[in-house]
Amino acid sequence: MPIRRSKVQVLVKWIFENQHKLQTVRYCSSSLRYKELEDSAAQPQPEHVAPPATAPSHKPRPHITPEISFKFDDLQVRLAAPYQLQPKPEAKELGFGKYFTDHMLKIYYHKELGGWQKPEIMPFENLNIHPAAKALHYAIQLFEGLKAYRGVDDKIRLFRPDLNMERMNLAAQRSGLPMFDGEELIKCFTRLVQIDQEWVPHSETSTLYIRPTLIGIEPTFGIMAPESALLFVILSPVSTYYKASTDGAVSIFADPNVVRAFPGGVGNRKVGSNYGPTIEATARAAKLGHHQVLWLFGPDHELTEVGAMNIFMVYINDQGEKQLSTPPLNGLILPGVTRRSIIELASEWDDLTVKEEVITMQRVIQLNKEGRLLEMFGAGTAVIISPISRVGFLEQDISIPTMKQAQPVFQRVKDTLLAIQYGHMEHPYAKVIS
Amino acid sequence: MPIRRSKVQVLVKWIFENQHKLQTVRYCSSSLRYKELEDSAAQPQPEHVAPPATAPSHKPRPHITPEISFKFDDLQVRLAAPYQLQPKPEAKELGFGKYFTDHMLKIYYHKELGGWQKPEIMPFENLNIHPAAKALHYAIQLFEGLKAYRGVDDKIRLFRPDLNMERMNLAAQRSGLPMFDGEELIKCFTRLVQIDQEWVPHSETSTLYIRPTLIGIEPTFGIMAPESALLFVILSPVSTYYKASTDGAVSIFADPNVVRAFPGGVGNRKVGSNYGPTIEATARAAKLGHHQVLWLFGPDHELTEVGAMNIFMVYINDQGEKQLSTPPLNGLILPGVTRRSIIELASEWDDLTVKEEVITMQRVIQLNKEGRLLEMFGAGTAVIISPISRVGFLEQDISIPTMKQAQPVFQRVKDTLLAIQYGHMEHPYAKVIS
Repeated sequence: MPIRRSKVQVLVKWIFENQHKLQTVRYCSSSLRYKELEDSAAQPQPEHVAPPATAPSHKPRPHITPEISFKFDDLQVRLAAPYQLQPKPEAKELGFGKYFTDHMLKIYYHKELGGWQKPEIMPFENLNIHPAAKALHYAIQLFEGLKAYRGVDDKIRLFRPDLNMERMNLAAQRSGLPMFDGEELIKCFTRLVQIDQEWVPHSETSTLYIRPTLIGIEPTFGIMAPESALLFVILSPVSTYYKASTDGAVSIFADPNVVRAFPGGVGNRKVGSNYGPTIEATARAAKLGHHQVLWLFGPDHELTEVGAMNIFMVYINDQGEKQLSTPPLNGLILPGVTRRSIIELASEWDDLTVKEEVITMQRVIQLNKEGRLLEMFGAGTAVIISPISRVGFLEQDISIPTMKQAQPVFQRVKDTLLAIQYGHMEHPYAKVIS
Repeated sequence: MPIRRSKVQVLVKWIFENQHKLQTVRYCSSSLRYKELEDSAAQPQPEHVAPPATAPSHKPRPHITPEISFKFDDLQVRLAAPYQLQPKPEAKELGFGKYFTDHMLKIYYHKELGGWQKPEIMPFENLNIHPAAKALHYAIQLFEGLKAYRGVDDKIRLFRPDLNMERMNLAAQRSGLPMFDGEELIKCFTRLVQIDQEWVPHSETSTLYIRPTLIGIEPTFGIMAPESALLFVILSPVSTYYKASTDGAVSIFADPNVVRAFPGGVGNRKVGSNYGPTIEATARAAKLGHHQVLWLFGPDHELTEVGAMNIFMVYINDQGEKQLSTPPLNGLILPGVTRRSIIELASEWDDLTVKEEVITMQRVIQLNKEGRLLEMFGAGTAVIISPISRVGFLEQDISIPTMKQAQPVFQRVKDTLLAIQYGHMEHPYAKVIS
């Protein structure tokens, strides 16, 4: 039975069918847009139009001349309207990476438009991605993780962001994704943090986690470097990553049959492909009552990483000195910013020998048996320092006396890092941004 | 200066501002919707509302009871309006995976809603993805590739889709993504192909490529199995994958320092993480004038795969017989549907010995030197059969006489596969769907 329609309905139907022609009217449909239209009179807004679904390639309107990197000076900012602002969760509810702030940063790359486009800060929103985007099929994607800390002086600091940018560019190069000037990206996301600065927790147990991400968005099925990419940065207020045991330490499981990285692979680059394949082994470790996987490599069961952290060990060496060791950067290990900082800081301490050296499970077991193994801990931006009190390996359940030391190295390392990060001491690693 | 508006403009503005309230009118805006509104009278439309940007988890409205797999019987179809239909490109312009059809299939999984939701076919559209979705950061993603062939009898066939579904479920299990009933997914995308059947090329050199994809969409930063996922299927009319040399064969480059897969990894599962890390090596091979990389493994330089294909070799064995060999499924090799079909088909041929065996570069070089190496070729759904005429390895440039055989095995294999796929012969591998 046909539906009877009034004249208004006919008009309304016409409008819905023809709304694409009504651009002027569309801009008028929200009073919020007026301001924007005025603002953009001098400076036309970029339009990153979503590509038509079946087009072979997308042709957004060019708005910069070709150049090597995007520039902070080109940054455009569109602030969220009051009604778009989200309530800030309580510090104790934060967890890790569950809440996001009110704004985000986006920078598009289109080879055919000369490369990087203008950086834009905008209200936090979902991404509009073509379902054939290479990032979704071939893992052409990489990310970084760093934090903004609110210090005792209420100033906000970053911790060695240049190292993250260096690593991000190495990962881009390895992934066929475009490189950029890290200093320019630091300036852009610094502005983002400044805009969302009330999201930086007023707490020394919480921080604002910064997640720069670079993905290939060219919507074609060829397995090759994408001609279009999107760099975005999102912010998440975070507290602790792990729920540790009651003693504050974690238990780790080492299965010689699971492998995180391999020579000739991407284990030393922060790319998505290092993480997806670890999910199953991590779940298996969890079922056995462990927090994380200790990733071994080779017939000698060399320790490489633990979970998504670098691993450290403290023991009495053959010279009777207290030694802090971590595996060397042999291509299988992520060059952690926390890792590097610990090595650099601890090298200044007179009472500790610091060494990058191969550590095998046999060595761990032997040192432990002889009572020379004092501590093991993981280190990374997300977790800071995570002491380890137990290692499951083959049929063995190895207790590590990390939590039994009177003045543990892990605590000293952690206190030093936190002192720098939260402004208790002046240090060149910390960069005040607000 | 305020903009002067006519009464119609005021009405239009009001409509744009209030269109969310006008559901009935919206549904009337396309005449195609009438039929659907009637169809759905008994069965209310699902609403997959995008999660609010900063929410810790998304809570779309539950609309099915908990169950193990989605079901074809629950499939809902929303057809594209006439103005949404795209022109079909010429067969010669197709290339591989550059054009997409008018519709797509989406199936959401939300653990907290009991798992798989109802399958939906809808007009092709961009995905709306939270920027923290695990698929974009940790490569929690996998895909499949199969084809719909338009036969000489104008019927449309699939080729052993059950094997793709089996492999897809193994990849899901390996990735912490939800599993499902493969038969149900085949029925769902069969319906999708039927709807877009005019996109199946009327040609025996082109096909409609089917790309089922499963991604983790939970928007949190923990590296663990996602509680929300999206399975989508998109279709792309395709012709050839490679631009081969003038003789129709490809040249491949074997660098012992690059590794595609390793024991304990995911080389035998069709997940995104196997592809991103190969881009750099492939680009390097291309710069040296090769089409693809020959992936070697171990100190003996075992052949594993070539590009994104399985590899085959034809030679005169020690018993003087003509032998077709391919490396065994040792965990480093993707269990290709074309690979398996070739082994099964060729095993029936009396004049050929078929074997899965380790093949080293040394063996290839030795056989070639003795004049016993006859052919090498790659095999996969995307390329079908790709003869290889040249291998670059260390300082050597090895010519393979694949294109010099009077009655090459690769051609016989290819003709047999195409005969089955395009309906020249009846065979249980082919499944008529339209």
